[in-house]
Amino acid sequence: MKHLLGLEELSAAEINRLLDAAEAFLGVGVGALPKRDDLKGKVVANLFYEPSTRTRVSFGLAARRLGADTLDFSPGGSSTAKGETFIDTAKNIEAMGIDAVVVRHSSPGAPHILAKYLLPHVRVINAGDGAHEHPTQALLDIFTIRQRLGRVAGLTVALIGDIAHSRVARSNIHGLVKLGARVIACGPTTLVPPEVASLGVEIAHDLDAILPRCDVLNLLRVQFERQRSGLFPSIREYRLLFGMDGERMHRAKPDALLLAPGPINRGVEITPDVADGANSAILDQVSNGLAVRMAVLSLLCK
Amino acid sequence: MKHLLGLEELSAAEINRLLDAAEAFLGVGVGALPKRDDLKGKVVANLFYEPSTRTRVSFGLAARRLGADTLDFSPGGSSTAKGETFIDTAKNIEAMGIDAVVVRHSSPGAPHILAKYLLPHVRVINAGDGAHEHPTQALLDIFTIRQRLGRVAGLTVALIGDIAHSRVARSNIHGLVKLGARVIACGPTTLVPPEVASLGVEIAHDLDAILPRCDVLNLLRVQFERQRSGLFPSIREYRLLFGMDGERMHRAKPDALLLAPGPINRGVEITPDVADGANSAILDQVSNGLAVRMAVLSLLCK
Amino acid sequence: MKHLLGLEELSAAEINRLLDAAEAFLGVGVGALPKRDDLKGKVVANLFYEPSTRTRVSFGLAARRLGADTLDFSPGGSSTAKGETFIDTAKNIEAMGIDAVVVRHSSPGAPHILAKYLLPHVRVINAGDGAHEHPTQALLDIFTIRQRLGRVAGLTVALIGDIAHSRVARSNIHGLVKLGARVIACGPTTLVPPEVASLGVEIAHDLDAILPRCDVLNLLRVQFERQRSGLFPSIREYRLLFGMDGERMHRAKPDALLLAPGPINRGVEITPDVADGANSAILDQVSNGLAVRMAVLSLLCK
Repeated sequence: MKHLLGLEELSAAEINRLLDAAEAFLGVGVGALPKRDDLKGKVVANLFYEPSTRTRVSFGLAARRLGADTLDFSPGGSSTAKGETFIDTAKNIEAMGIDAVVVRHSSPGAPHILAKYLLPHVRVINAGDGAHEHPTQALLDIFTIRQRLGRVAGLTVALIGDIAHSRVARSNIHGLVKLGARVIACGPTTLVPPEVASLGVEIAHDLDAILPRCDVLNLLRVQFERQRSGLFPSIREYRLLFGMDGERMHRAKPDALLLAPGPINRGVEITPDVADGANSAILDQVSNGLAVRMAVLSLLCK
Repeated sequence: MKHLLGLEELSAAEINRLLDAAEAFLGVGVGALPKRDDLKGKVVANLFYEPSTRTRVSFGLAARRLGADTLDFSPGGSSTAKGETFIDTAKNIEAMGIDAVVVRHSSPGAPHILAKYLLPHVRVINAGDGAHEHPTQALLDIFTIRQRLGRVAGLTVALIGDIAHSRVARSNIHGLVKLGARVIACGPTTLVPPEVASLGVEIAHDLDAILPRCDVLNLLRVQFERQRSGLFPSIREYRLLFGMDGERMHRAKPDALLLAPGPINRGVEITPDVADGANSAILDQVSNGLAVRMAVLSLLCK
Repeated sequence: MKHLLGLEELSAAEINRLLDAAEAFLGVGVGALPKRDDLKGKVVANLFYEPSTRTRVSFGLAARRLGADTLDFSPGGSSTAKGETFIDTAKNIEAMGIDAVVVRHSSPGAPHILAKYLLPHVRVINAGDGAHEHPTQALLDIFTIRQRLGRVAGLTVALIGDIAHSRVARSNIHGLVKLGARVIACGPTTLVPPEVASLGVEIAHDLDAILPRCDVLNLLRVQFERQRSGLFPSIREYRLLFGMDGERMHRAKPDALLLAPGPINRGVEITPDVADGANSAILDQVSNGLAVRMAVLSLLCK
């Protein structure tokens, strides 16, 4: 494995290798991360074209916990405003002697372009490219499933919400299907494109109907800015049909695992009692995200 | 001591312990800070909801000088804009494996809420909560008094300006009274609430009348944005009544110590000759601020 | 050498000493930077009053690669907005125990003011002051010339474009003339002030006429925001007269070296085929910039 562009490109063995590696980066104490020297002397660059705090901070901290130097290049208002092309900006960062670049961009395929144009020794990690993929988010989701339920193969995992615009959903589908899970894409008809069936995914529009079958419920974030598109139901209707609340939890399997990529909208995708309840692994996902990102950086850059 | 939420919660012994610890972090050379390994492997997070450069930079540098990794989470325009609650943001940062969080927030009590909701091993340090407290600023003020004048007990310290809206004043009052200083809150009647008398503070509105009695004059910052409130006199009137200039200095004790939390408005709270004169310890405060913050982080996180 | 304020102040021997030192900081691998302990325990501050990503990141990374702690103070919207003077801000950063400050400011001479007012042990490095100097940019330009062509003395170097407003041009002129190069300032009559002749520079307005004589062509960035000034020709006219394209390259010396301070406007100063061609050293400049900045920091702060 040279880059991490998406889970579509990886085999089940490669995904499992990353998940296994992440185990070694889990802290021993509560939330503690080990401090290591794996990447001592290396430089990891964050190149984020979309605003992000948590993913950017998570990658930066993961790199520094491995002993790497980091640099943060957020082109908003800087060189890009000055008319520089995406490739030129990336080549400039590359010329600063980096070993890996973590890239987020609104254009699907942007990380693939970097992988093609950057020097052979530079690793590219996709931190989200348009509605295409967000592989480390899916890896941390799957890692959390494995951690909580002991396996992935044979489980039924529902991705709930706006499947059409979600890079998180797309990466989860690729990863989960490869590892032998049954995936259900569940959401309003306007937001679940029929084409996802071709990825080996079951399509559903009635959450209550599939609920009793699901081992994992991954609640995608409602993007309020999409409301204006006309594709999205009202918040009230969404909550009624797809929001996870205590009543709905009673109809789910008793040990159904709840995931959410966050930041969550309390009272929309999920009610506070459920978000903070025993079935929720939302905060574990954040901790696991660091372990997964340390594993990715470590495996790619060593 | 588990957290540093405010000086109101601390005993005189605890305050002295922090001040004593800060001595050890003073550099030997001019302005030099020692580089140490006290917090090697630890992670300190900055969570600043109000814009700040100097306090944020001071805490970040203090943490790195102790060997910690740092992460900077400034929610402006990020997750908060996405609708995430304060607690959820904090729990997310906590899940990244942090050992301490330095928080600034416009709401009084925000750090106390974190101390209640975060895991028991995470330390919370208040870097300013509304008009409530700013304990490290008061600690560095008091440290500077002790450094310059050899003691705190028995001294008369005037806090001058907008007492009503100042977290710096409030923390200073708690700390100074506990350490046995006599505190005078001096400012326009609209900006000195009579209730501060209940904290053991003398109230004054005529600076020239109290000047000969004061060992320390702490000149609070004029917040120009408060001018519109109608509570504040004009800049001209403020300077005339409460601004420290050479003439006023002649009526003060010869070795009266001048403090100011900064950034200072030259020509308003203080004239340039006085700000740069021998009685001023304004820049010592900045250096001492780093030593104090290193002491706080070190004592809480070790 | 105590500070790096401009190349005007340096002797040829001092410039050569910096260039020689930079050799030692070139990585052995592709784009790799050595990780060293030269500045372990030191603190380097970035104080940027003008927006900058690449120069700021380059200095920050250079400092960390030498083992220094860094702090980033970008006054935009912070203390400066609060009315603090430039000197007060700098004295505050100094009081945090820094060893060097890297400053960018729109006012020519701002770094000289810092060198005058800061404590004797603090080193000041000019990262660009108005239209005055940008010495590390010129050093990396000259370093790249020496690296590619084996020498500087005796070469003919054309600086092409907006000479009048360019700190890059001014620093290059001082450095190149001192090292014995022949410098031609070439651009529209409105943008090449006749006074530069007094610096020992030949003035030209017809690029095609001087092209066959030039060993190096340094293509200054077109500042689109200057278009409105009326001094600047249209983009179309600029490209026609001063843009470097394949046809023009055929009239240049076969091994003519192309430099550009970046970020480049593809299709304006330079066409893509030329920017990415064998004569271009644009990306080498970025890598060399880090080595030069490591050398400057190391020589000044040790």
